[in-house]
Amino acid sequence: MTLPVEFALIARHFLPLAGPGALGLGDDAALFDPPSGKQLVLAADAIVEGVHFLPDDPPETIGRKLLRVNLSDLAAMGAEPLGYLMTTAFGPRMDETWIGRFVAGLADDQREFGIFVLGGDTVATPGPASFSLTIIGSVEPGRAIRRAGAKPGDAIFVSGTIGDGALGLKALRGEIADATGFLADRYRLPRPRVALGRAVAGLVSAGMDVSDGLAQDLGHLCRAGGCGAEIMVGDVPRSPAARAALAVDPSLIATILSGGDDYELLLAVPDSQRPALHTAAATAGVALTRIGRFVAGPPDIILRGADGAPITLARQGWSHFR
Amino acid sequence: MTLPVEFALIARHFLPLAGPGALGLGDDAALFDPPSGKQLVLAADAIVEGVHFLPDDPPETIGRKLLRVNLSDLAAMGAEPLGYLMTTAFGPRMDETWIGRFVAGLADDQREFGIFVLGGDTVATPGPASFSLTIIGSVEPGRAIRRAGAKPGDAIFVSGTIGDGALGLKALRGEIADATGFLADRYRLPRPRVALGRAVAGLVSAGMDVSDGLAQDLGHLCRAGGCGAEIMVGDVPRSPAARAALAVDPSLIATILSGGDDYELLLAVPDSQRPALHTAAATAGVALTRIGRFVAGPPDIILRGADGAPITLARQGWSHFR
Repeated sequence: MTLPVEFALIARHFLPLAGPGALGLGDDAALFDPPSGKQLVLAADAIVEGVHFLPDDPPETIGRKLLRVNLSDLAAMGAEPLGYLMTTAFGPRMDETWIGRFVAGLADDQREFGIFVLGGDTVATPGPASFSLTIIGSVEPGRAIRRAGAKPGDAIFVSGTIGDGALGLKALRGEIADATGFLADRYRLPRPRVALGRAVAGLVSAGMDVSDGLAQDLGHLCRAGGCGAEIMVGDVPRSPAARAALAVDPSLIATILSGGDDYELLLAVPDSQRPALHTAAATAGVALTRIGRFVAGPPDIILRGADGAPITLARQGWSHFR
Repeated sequence: MTLPVEFALIARHFLPLAGPGALGLGDDAALFDPPSGKQLVLAADAIVEGVHFLPDDPPETIGRKLLRVNLSDLAAMGAEPLGYLMTTAFGPRMDETWIGRFVAGLADDQREFGIFVLGGDTVATPGPASFSLTIIGSVEPGRAIRRAGAKPGDAIFVSGTIGDGALGLKALRGEIADATGFLADRYRLPRPRVALGRAVAGLVSAGMDVSDGLAQDLGHLCRAGGCGAEIMVGDVPRSPAARAALAVDPSLIATILSGGDDYELLLAVPDSQRPALHTAAATAGVALTRIGRFVAGPPDIILRGADGAPITLARQGWSHFR
């Protein structure tokens, strides 16, 4: 089929997503009043068909995942989401029905997260589809959560459960069972911890979101903070579905710790802030679990088993970890 | 060749482009202090290899063109450029040498336009390369140039010369001669009229940049303003190279008027502002030429020849025009 001309496509599908400042998507650019007295927080991510999402993924989840990955970047900085710009390069097989479903998913998430489209661009491509999204949020000056700042003695906390996204990809590839579909859902639809990020900003020494795997991302915090980390592997929180998968194949612990696609928050927390942290987590309605602590020394990560002895994992995904 | 891992690629090539607020491209997002008391102006465009640029285009010009197309959107709104985020999906044949040249072009333009990278994302794609750029600028509140506002009686002005980009594409395809390379250069490297846009904001009733062809874009101003337009075709400014091409093939006038890729400013100017407009253009160092006027009536565009009689053009590119 032939795509409708860009203008008609934008008017039919993207105009309903547009918010204040988008000027009806009819001007050369959006006109945006930044909240006064705030810093802006800006992130951009791109995804490519066949690389970051599967050609037969439901169209509703593809745009939502891209939006949520960007929302997770705002959550990691403790920022409040305001709006986004999106460029879409739709592939030849993406007809208007497909595009309508893609946009419907975005509309759902706009309602859930209270944000709007500010602008963008729609083009066609003969190759794999690709999408790019720039998100804009705000934070009180000086309050943004940064990657640098973890100190020896700080506790390491993670939100939610770890490993579900990576296990979900395995489930979608048919490599492991996923009786309830929970794991696949977590792979396709991350839960960005926006409210939690807002609530804990100012309480943590450092933080980021876990997108490339807990081990690798913890390595980033270690290098940025100039310290090491010790993790109690048994304390890393797992969903019931992840526990069920581990019971079948204990070697999946490597996937859980290094697989990525978690989009949970990884935080360095001084002991003095732990009571306030738990209050903040309760307010945000998200579990926070202590999984270890930062230690003096080189930026290495020591994994300890139930008996406290160091354990090693040899699997892909760990190559960048030290 | 195998692309180096994303982190190394970013550190080697993109970190030198990063400006204040980019946080060394090492955090989850950029932290940007918006200029106080200003509105922000935001635009995003995407380009795809084989669609918006040619696979054998010099790598230096590809990123620059994308940046300049976005700068032209800021110029169209009368905004001052501040920074940009870029996502890159490099194709398989784009090795580090190619990427280095791509980035070197961006570095040149960052110096020319005084802007910096704030963030972005780098991924690989098996298909055609694609690039997406979100640009951020600022404008004094209420001073942005908008598409709506043209009134019957307003003069129609364009900056620079019209048709060079579209003729340049024809030249690159070998369809017309381009002895000096001027036309091809204009296709590959638009000249966004940033200084002019800043200078004329507040003086014009409406404006936009000419990206989809003078006729089509003038149609946008007519529809947004609820009026028609009359153009004196002979007054549309042409470069010496365009005049040479026209002398060989007079039918190229259709390409000049409707071809697109001009990235000049198209402005609606009340008579009372014309003296101030000419002062502003002189300050910005860009020629402004009056090519017609807006008239009462439906949003039609009447083209008049040297004798004042209406003329018609039947060529592709006009389909969206009314």
